[in-house]
Parts: sequence; C-alpha cells; structure tokens
Amino acid sequence: VRIDLNADLGEGFGVWRLGDDDALLDVVSSANVACGFHAGDPVTMDRVCRAAAARAVAVGAQVSYRDLVGFGRRRIDVEPEELRCDVVYQLGALHACATAAGTRVSYVKPHGALYNVAAEDARQADAVAAAVASVDPALALLGLPGSEHQTAAARHGLRFVTEAFADRAYLADGRLVPRSHDHAVLRDPDEIAARVLRLVRDGVIDTIDGARISVEAQSICVHGDTPGAVAIAERVRTELTAAGVQVAPFTA
Amino acid sequence: VRIDLNADLGEGFGVWRLGDDDALLDVVSSANVACGFHAGDPVTMDRVCRAAAARAVAVGAQVSYRDLVGFGRRRIDVEPEELRCDVVYQLGALHACATAAGTRVSYVKPHGALYNVAAEDARQADAVAAAVASVDPALALLGLPGSEHQTAAARHGLRFVTEAFADRAYLADGRLVPRSHDHAVLRDPDEIAARVLRLVRDGVIDTIDGARISVEAQSICVHGDTPGAVAIAERVRTELTAAGVQVAPFTA
Amino acid sequence: VRIDLNADLGEGFGVWRLGDDDALLDVVSSANVACGFHAGDPVTMDRVCRAAAARAVAVGAQVSYRDLVGFGRRRIDVEPEELRCDVVYQLGALHACATAAGTRVSYVKPHGALYNVAAEDARQADAVAAAVASVDPALALLGLPGSEHQTAAARHGLRFVTEAFADRAYLADGRLVPRSHDHAVLRDPDEIAARVLRLVRDGVIDTIDGARISVEAQSICVHGDTPGAVAIAERVRTELTAAGVQVAPFTA
Amino acid sequence: VRIDLNADLGEGFGVWRLGDDDALLDVVSSANVACGFHAGDPVTMDRVCRAAAARAVAVGAQVSYRDLVGFGRRRIDVEPEELRCDVVYQLGALHACATAAGTRVSYVKPHGALYNVAAEDARQADAVAAAVASVDPALALLGLPGSEHQTAAARHGLRFVTEAFADRAYLADGRLVPRSHDHAVLRDPDEIAARVLRLVRDGVIDTIDGARISVEAQSICVHGDTPGAVAIAERVRTELTAAGVQVAPFTA
Repeated sequence: VRIDLNADLGEGFGVWRLGDDDALLDVVSSANVACGFHAGDPVTMDRVCRAAAARAVAVGAQVSYRDLVGFGRRRIDVEPEELRCDVVYQLGALHACATAAGTRVSYVKPHGALYNVAAEDARQADAVAAAVASVDPALALLGLPGSEHQTAAARHGLRFVTEAFADRAYLADGRLVPRSHDHAVLRDPDEIAARVLRLVRDGVIDTIDGARISVEAQSICVHGDTPGAVAIAERVRTELTAAGVQVAPFTA
Repeated sequence: VRIDLNADLGEGFGVWRLGDDDALLDVVSSANVACGFHAGDPVTMDRVCRAAAARAVAVGAQVSYRDLVGFGRRRIDVEPEELRCDVVYQLGALHACATAAGTRVSYVKPHGALYNVAAEDARQADAVAAAVASVDPALALLGLPGSEHQTAAARHGLRFVTEAFADRAYLADGRLVPRSHDHAVLRDPDEIAARVLRLVRDGVIDTIDGARISVEAQSICVHGDTPGAVAIAERVRTELTAAGVQVAPFTA
Repeated sequence: VRIDLNADLGEGFGVWRLGDDDALLDVVSSANVACGFHAGDPVTMDRVCRAAAARAVAVGAQVSYRDLVGFGRRRIDVEPEELRCDVVYQLGALHACATAAGTRVSYVKPHGALYNVAAEDARQADAVAAAVASVDPALALLGLPGSEHQTAAARHGLRFVTEAFADRAYLADGRLVPRSHDHAVLRDPDEIAARVLRLVRDGVIDTIDGARISVEAQSICVHGDTPGAVAIAERVRTELTAAGVQVAPFTA
Repeated sequence: VRIDLNADLGEGFGVWRLGDDDALLDVVSSANVACGFHAGDPVTMDRVCRAAAARAVAVGAQVSYRDLVGFGRRRIDVEPEELRCDVVYQLGALHACATAAGTRVSYVKPHGALYNVAAEDARQADAVAAAVASVDPALALLGLPGSEHQTAAARHGLRFVTEAFADRAYLADGRLVPRSHDHAVLRDPDEIAARVLRLVRDGVIDTIDGARISVEAQSICVHGDTPGAVAIAERVRTELTAAGVQVAPFTA
C-alpha cells in the first residue's frame, strides 16, 4: 500500500515566514509550493525547490488569485481568461525555479479561495485546467474528488489526483464540514493518525454524524502552519510507516 | 545581408498601455517582452506572445528589478543571489506564457536600471547570466558589446548577441552619449535610418564629435513608446528593406 | 442655479497615464483622486492635488479595493473590518498629499467594483462610511441616490452628496442601464449636454424607454479617459455655463 | 530622570507577523509603526495604533522605501522629489489610522536602508524632512545625532530627537560598529541593561575598543523581532525603572 502526503510550502514572503518548511519537507512526499501571488517570492521558491529536490519530494505549483495582503483567501471576481493567464504565469515561474534547483513541477494545486471557488465554479475550474494543459499536458491537477476541478481536468485531458484532508471533519455527503462549524478541524493527533490510516487502508472516513463513507484519495493533505500542525503531520507519517504504508509521491 | 531589429514590448500593466505594441510588432524581428517586474501582467504577456507568434517575431524575456512604480528605472541594491532568483522567476513566467501562445522564449535582455547596472557591475551581470544558464543554456543574452554582460555570458557558456541603438548618439570610445546630454537622442528619421543602414552594411557609426568608429551589432534596438518613435522604427525597417537588407530574428 | 461636476483623476501609476488630467481639471469642480489602491502613486497624487489646488477644484478621495492589476474593477470579498481599514489608509494618504499641496480632502467617492458593491451591500457600505466618519466627520460621501451608501452615510452622520452620470442611460426606476446593454453609454455630445442641462435645471432625465423621471443630483459625473470623453465633458461645461448655470464644488 | 524607549512595530503584512507587538508595547514608550511600504497593512496598522493608544504609547511613522519583498533594507536610487511624495503618503496613511484609533502620529523615523542612506545623503535627508514639514511642522524626526537627518530637520524647522541603540556596539567616533563586524550586536541582557542605564544617567557609552564617549540620546531604540530581543527590551525597562528612571514618550 502506498499513499502521497501533500502540504503547502514556501508560504512566506521576503523576511516573513509561515510554518516550518524544513520540518514539513521531512514528512510529505509532495510539496505545494507558493508561486508569488498569495505568498512565495523567488528566493523562497528557490530555497524550497532545492530542499524538496534534496529529499526527492515532488514539487507542485500552488497557484492563487493575486492577493498578497489577503493571502489568497478572498474570492476575486476574475474573468476566466485572466485567471488562465495568471495560472500560466505562476506555473511557469515555479517551473523555472524548479529547473534551476534540479527538479521539476509535476502537478498543480489551487490555493485558498481559488481552491474553493474553482471546486464549484465550472468557468474558473476550466480556466485553471486550460492553463495547465496549455503549458504541459503531462502535469496533474490535485483537488477534491467530485469537484468542478475534476470535471475540468478530464475535459482538458489532464490527470486528476484526488485528495482528502487529514485534520478536517467530513459530512455524510463527502464534503468538508465548513470551517465556521465548531468541530470542523480535528486536533487530536491520535484520532487524526488513526483516521488517515483507515482512509488509506480501507478507503473510508467516519463522518461528523457517526456515519462511515467511502472517500477516494490518492493524496492526503497535511498542514504545517503551526507547531501543533507539524507534530500532527509527523505523527501521521509515523503511523502510516509503522503500518507498512509507503509514503511516496503520486507522481512516482 | 541580414539584421535583427529588437524593441521593448508589452510594457503596460492592467488597464495601462505604453507604446503601440501592434505597430511595433510589424517592424521588429525580436520582441523584448516585459515579465511583470517593471511592467507586464499575465494577460498583456499572453496577448503580446500571441501577436509575436502570429508574425514569427522572436520572443525575449525583458527582465528587470522588481519595481512597478519606478518602471525598473531605479537602481536597487539587490544581492546577486536574489537577483538570480528574480531573473529565473521572470524568465519562467514568460516561458510559460510563450508556450501557451504557441511560441517560446529564445533570449533574455535586462531592462532599464538592470541593463545599465549589470553592464558595468560584474556581480549583477553574473547573477543574470547564471539565472539564464540554469533555466536553459540554449538561451541567448542580448546586450552591449564589451559590457560585463558579455563577459558573464561567456563565463556561463551563453551565446551573447550584441546590439546597437538606432536613435542614440555615440562617443568616440563606443559608449552611448549619456541621456543628460542635449544631443544624446537622435530624432530625425532620415538621419537615423541612414545611420542604421551604414551600421548594418559597413559596421560603422559616426560619433557625436565627428569621428567614425566600428560598432559590432547583431541587433538594432528601436523604440516605440511615442508616436514619433514608431514612425522612426518603421522608417528604419523600410530603409533597410529597400537596401536589400533582410530583417530577421538573430535566432533564425 | 449651481451644479458640481466631478471626474476621476490621477488614475495613472508610475510611468503610466490614464486620461488627460489637466484637460479635465479645467472642466470639473471636484476631482476624485485615486489613492494608490487601484491607481495613483504618491507622485501622481501630489501632481494632481497641486493642479486641483491651483484651479480651486475640490479634492475627493477615490477609494478602492486593493487591486492595481484589475484597476479596482473586480469584486473582492473583503471583510468589512478590513475594508474599513483600507479606506482609512487611502483617505489618510491622500489627505497628507493634499495638505502638502496646499489643499485638503473634502469628500470620498468609492471607485469601480467598490462603488457598485457598496451601493447594494449594506455591510461594505457601512465599512466605508465608518472609515470616513472615524477620520473626519466633516467629510462628505459622494454616491448614488437611494443606495446603501446613502443609508450608511446617514447612519454615521455624514453628509451624502448625490450624483448622476452625464453619459449613462437610465432605467425607469432610476437605476443605470447595465453596461452590458448596447445603449448603456451615450456618445453624442449634443444629446449629453442637453440631458445634463435638463437634469440640472428641471431635475429630470429621459429614460431609455422614453419615460421622464425625477433624479436628484448635487453633482454630475463626467469621464475623461478617452479624447472623446474629454470633449464631451468640455461640451457639458460650456452648455451649462452658457445657460447661466454656475459650475462649482458642492463643498463651496 | 526620564528617557524614551522606541521600537519598530507592526512590521507584519497580511497573515505574516514579525516580532511580538503586544509584548513590546508593554516595554516601549514610542512605537515606530510601519506604514505599508516595507511592512504594515492597514489592518495591522489599525491594530497596533489601538494597542498603542490603550497604553499611552506614542505613535511614530516608520517610513521606508517602497520595497515589501526586500523589507526596505535595499537602497533604491529614488529621486528626492519622489521620496518626498512617498513619505507624505505613508505619513498620511498612518495619521488616519491613528486618528481612527483615537491617537495621533507625533514623530517620524525612517526605516532600514532609508535610515542609513538619509543619515549620510543630504538630498534624501532633505526630502524626508521636507515631507514631514509639509504635512505637519509640529512632528518630530527621530534619528542619529550628527546625521544628515539632523541637519535637514533643522533646515525645515523640525524638532530632531536623537536616539542611541541599546544592543549595538559603538566606535570611538560615535558611529555604530557595522553589522558585518563580529561584535556589532550585543546579546547579554545584563551588559545591555547596564549600558543603557549608564547612557541615560551619565550620557556615556563604552566603545568597542575600550574608550568611553559622550552620546546624546533622548530615546533608546530596542528591538523585538526575536524572543531574545523582547526579553532584553524588558530587562532594559526593568533596570531603568528600578534605578528610578521614568520611561515616557519624548513627546510627553
């Protein structure tokens, strides 16, 4: 059994850092590297790409709306054609950083508000997929199963890689419990690690209301923006490895 | 006889435009496309790359210090390592735009203050050349003959393409008359066209003090940021063509 | 009879210009000066404030979402508290520029998407009004009659100044014909000038479907971002003056 | 005996934080608040101004070159007239934030590269002082004794407040030991606190080569960008207070 672990990385800007990139790079097999629109300056991108290359961690382009001050978390009513160009730009910028660092970009994952909007908005999802396909049709798109992202990826002939979230509660219909809900985010490392192991081995998740549902996930998203989050991610990896699950890039 | 004509293009940002890109693209054989640091947003880059592709005009990355408000005209004391990453980022961004538009980046030309600083500062010139070589050693670097750019290009195994300026006066030592000088910029289309033709055919330029010097130029830089400048550029091309000189990309 | 004419000014950035500020400043009595978030750098703001001061044109803060590349025309889902701070920041920046230029800010007018969103969204309208009131309760807010802006201004004890648009077609309910409609924008200088004169003298506008409605407007918005637009604005002023209407700031 | 303690505050941007603003605000009497050009977004500025107001800490505008990615640490060859406008803009923006937060800006301190450049470059120093004087001649300028800042402040009729650095080694001529030197920065809380107390009480500092020099300082700059730095700042304040020195804004 094999699974990919992905996390957002390189989300600082200039002197500012967010999360512990080095610690997370020892946990994950795929690094979603910020490309400069919500976070990530060229020096940070270079550093993260080199660190990922040194650990054989796969590099993905974490593309976003152009919104540094809002960290890409605010919906922007961008025209699809403009979004397409924005994604091409970011993808290319990271691709060159990765090349210079001795690795390459192998997938794309939208960030923040773009992740949420394009999961439900066919026009924005299409713009993202069209951008990716026009730069390199061998790239994969990483996102929610059943989302508009998945539909758009298929339309443009892209491989779509499904992901689940290690620390998020699920509804019975397979969607995430909204963050506004008290129990949207799980915090107990034991519980999270057990959930992930069950998901990887059996393809099921226990929902917030006690049901058990099937969830398709070729990658598990972990977080690293707080000390606690890194410890949880490390625990997830340890648990998986102890159970004989190999953590490896989905691109491997 | 054959010569390349190059010009700065895509130097708008968002709603703002600078110069007449379409008119210039009918004149030049190489387009120095702004990459977002001094000008050039992804939509503009996409548009210019498509227009260049449609006319078989070569695309070059016009890389700059990060300085939108100063249009890249102000020296910034950036560390070489940071400059290297900035150039990688811009080059990659344009490369993806060009790929999506059905063409490719074939050379790099620094813009504004970076052009001037790196022509004389070995560390900055080296950072630019190192960046280019790390992304694609087949790319050429376009710049002043005898500059630190040329030395750095050689050190990194890059092809260096020399350029001369159609509308600038020259000193006897081959350098440009500083812009602060009254007669630094030529404005008479007849005179400019005749100078360019003489340069292309005979490899010589008449200097501001009446001497005649040899100038090596594989490309001639024309401008297009004013209506008068476009007319001059058109006149230069017409004169060259009438004299049997073929205008074609140096990359051809 | 007296009326105010207002227009958007200082909407360039760095080397880029939009419209003919000087020509428009000879037409209007109130200048909505861009404050740096959708357009307008400090040098441009300084220049426009000095030119306005020299002509006794009133200065207003044209506040916007933070979106240079989109020129503030894209809706951004900003939290009210964040929008409040953004407006305070822009207003203060222009206030200092105006002070240094020997004049002062006397009103605030939201720009682009913020104008449209806050006209209908009570929370965003409230954030704008709260910001203005917290900086200087003597400032006026300029906007659409009957909008959420007007309600919010009243709630915060601000003077609200109503405006009409010289070159926009109106619906029977007093709203503007959406720009997507073919005849949303009027282009005939004769017709526009006559409409404005009728509006100022009689308080009525002929709607797109032939009705005549009452419109309350203490200021008329004219545009200047094209050569044609400046000519229309000049024509409006000439017509008003010829008819004995005094063009003067509403703040006078 | 009374002394002012100042520190840089509000140097985050969006989600990013730098240093512990709240801890430092319990130590200092004057807060140099970042104004958006090297750090500091409107929400952060609002938060810091309110926290400063609640503690009766004076608010100063920490103005900078426009350089988010470089944190204002890189020299930019900006024209004095442009720098003047940039300072006016930042000062006004913070002034409005402070007003909305129930306090006011009472001084200006340049940041990073601008601090260093303008200390030695008369033209840039003059631009800063001219900007301050044009907005409010009652504002003070905080900087190095004997610097071009001081000369420029005098020329523009501004109060100049001298500062010394708690944790920096001094040369015999009163200048700071350059950061490139191994012992440029002191790290021992005991030593630093003792130095500051001696400086405040006796007006002297022991230099790096064992001499004792007179240093005029109406304010002491402390840092807070690391946990260790905050502890040192707290120790300095404790030592001063224990010795009967009152820590209070120089504006009091």
